[in-house]
Amino acid sequence: MALNIAVLPGDGIGPEIIAQALRVLEVLKKEGLDMTFTEAPLGGQAYDRFGHPYPEFTQEICRKADAVLLGAVGGPQYDSLDRPLRPERGLLAIRKDLGLFANLRPAVLFPELANASTLKAEVVAGLDIMIVRELTGDVYFGQPRGIRTNDEGVREGFNTMIYSEPEVRRIAHVAFEIAMKRGKKLCSVDKANVLETTEFWKEIVIDVAKEYPEVELSHMYVDNAAMQLIRNPKQFDVMVTGNIFGDILSDEASMLTGSIGMLASASLNESKKGLYEPSHGSAPDIAGKNLANPIATILSAAMMLRYSFDNEAAATRIENAVKKVLAAGYRTGDIYEEGTRKVSCSEMGDQIVAAM
Amino acid sequence: MALNIAVLPGDGIGPEIIAQALRVLEVLKKEGLDMTFTEAPLGGQAYDRFGHPYPEFTQEICRKADAVLLGAVGGPQYDSLDRPLRPERGLLAIRKDLGLFANLRPAVLFPELANASTLKAEVVAGLDIMIVRELTGDVYFGQPRGIRTNDEGVREGFNTMIYSEPEVRRIAHVAFEIAMKRGKKLCSVDKANVLETTEFWKEIVIDVAKEYPEVELSHMYVDNAAMQLIRNPKQFDVMVTGNIFGDILSDEASMLTGSIGMLASASLNESKKGLYEPSHGSAPDIAGKNLANPIATILSAAMMLRYSFDNEAAATRIENAVKKVLAAGYRTGDIYEEGTRKVSCSEMGDQIVAAM
Ligand SMILES: CC(C)[C@H](C(=O)O)[C@@H](O)C(=O)O
Ligand SMILES: CC(C)[C@H](C(=O)O)[C@@H](O)C(=O)O
Repeated sequence: MALNIAVLPGDGIGPEIIAQALRVLEVLKKEGLDMTFTEAPLGGQAYDRFGHPYPEFTQEICRKADAVLLGAVGGPQYDSLDRPLRPERGLLAIRKDLGLFANLRPAVLFPELANASTLKAEVVAGLDIMIVRELTGDVYFGQPRGIRTNDEGVREGFNTMIYSEPEVRRIAHVAFEIAMKRGKKLCSVDKANVLETTEFWKEIVIDVAKEYPEVELSHMYVDNAAMQLIRNPKQFDVMVTGNIFGDILSDEASMLTGSIGMLASASLNESKKGLYEPSHGSAPDIAGKNLANPIATILSAAMMLRYSFDNEAAATRIENAVKKVLAAGYRTGDIYEEGTRKVSCSEMGDQIVAAM
Repeated sequence: MALNIAVLPGDGIGPEIIAQALRVLEVLKKEGLDMTFTEAPLGGQAYDRFGHPYPEFTQEICRKADAVLLGAVGGPQYDSLDRPLRPERGLLAIRKDLGLFANLRPAVLFPELANASTLKAEVVAGLDIMIVRELTGDVYFGQPRGIRTNDEGVREGFNTMIYSEPEVRRIAHVAFEIAMKRGKKLCSVDKANVLETTEFWKEIVIDVAKEYPEVELSHMYVDNAAMQLIRNPKQFDVMVTGNIFGDILSDEASMLTGSIGMLASASLNESKKGLYEPSHGSAPDIAGKNLANPIATILSAAMMLRYSFDNEAAATRIENAVKKVLAAGYRTGDIYEEGTRKVSCSEMGDQIVAAM
């Protein structure tokens, strides 16, 4: 049966980087991997066409798909829209709609790009952290929320941070399973000394740990985790945390590499359906100029083959092609340094296709 | 009139580092600065004596004081206590009790210690950020909160993130005032694209900005701020944010310096009463060994003279004494490197007293 892939180019550099990822997937398709690609708009692009950042048109295509490949959303021309119509609301909506509760964000330093980091080489050389972020709960979606005038006539903004037992249990399982396939070390990040939500989180994670006696579980407060990522990031293997702490720590961790143009991400639901997208944004400033780095998107396509389609061989083949091209010295502008060969977005695609 | 200072040594290395700060203050007292010191316990030390981390005994002394000088709280022997009795609850309680809503956390790189950072020298050389963290609101204190079984019989943990207009207004004023005395650049950190609490925060900050036309105000999402602190920390002058984001970002920022044994902090109320403490913790592993670095506490005493007693001259004198001792090559173990002179906690105190 064909693998049914929804393709959402999105805004800014989204279409350019998606185009290169599709070229790489086409190589596999020509060789016999049965895939169909159905394009749909998300974010600003969707607002322009349908008046909504996650319109029904896109919902239908994504619900039917086995996996979703996304470029990026957002741009300054949408900043003045009403909040519910802004591009990032499309992203939140598709996560919730498809039940994509498990966000996997690798922070990996490619040896060839060690200089790109603002951290000293010895601190980040060989860095390979997997951050598992819960993506459909927490203060992102908790009710009640809003801006109101209270009984004393004072205006206030408020949100609800909340996690239920099944929500914590399922993300903990995902994190332990990933730890089992990696270095068997899992660090759960909380603020259990202050927040009951995360005190509860910690309690459930400890309970789930009983099913994974081989995994060494540790706990860390979020403020300390923010420090330890800078002090000694290589102490971490897999980290698991809630939606808002994960938002902050996964971005911090990716910046340790100095090259977020290289970092992929996966957001999975309970039946392995996933949305795959680069960790970086839509970079409106260089959109349409054929300057963007397509590698994070190409590596996201590799994650898709691995996590949604269990095709480890194809995933590894793409990853090896990327490594080969880096080793050969090809670089887009964001990762360029003297002595390497600067190429455009599509030329980087050419090289990776050729290296396949 | 005498300046009435409550002294809370606390746990772990607290008593040792406080002792050195008091020696430095004694120099000023002998020269005629009228100060009285009243000691009281906080944290584990207070639990041991009074069965509570912020007992009435300490409340009375702190309420009467003009300023509070604190060492640090916490230790493994208290980890098994019921949550409300743990040392850090004493810290939260004194903040709330004294209305210490404005936490000032400088992240400053001392030129002599540039090597201590895990970041490249050119990225952090000259770093001087002031983080203004709201300290008595947000999800730290919001109601309702707890762990419950909901109507469907599912257990869940929950907290309330909340900020009222007066709370945001007063911390914004503090931040703008500080920016006016520094580089006139203020970055307000929020997650306004997702959280109404911080959308409201942003709205109020923009309104307060009208009173400070000279200050260049910018806004940044918290995930981006976590990245930018690593990518290019010197872009920041003053940052202002809520309690939980401030907890994370201020620790991240202090770790950029690689020497948190050097970093002071102040927590102020509306009438300049303040609690002053080092940014680091109670370091139980080296407690009682005369190994701790007393400089952060000594610099906290300098902040106390500046912010609570408007004595800029005395504050600068302490800070200059610290600089002189660093320039002369004296280092406690945490900041020691080859070619410098390793000294104990009390020897560091000796040197700073002598340099006064
Ligand atoms: C755009 C925004 C809503 C989103 C988030 O906060 O989840 C982004 O920061 C991310 O991490 O994917
Ligand atoms: C100990 C803890 C309650 C405290 C906080 O979260 O505020 C600490 O991390 C701090 O930053 O002073």
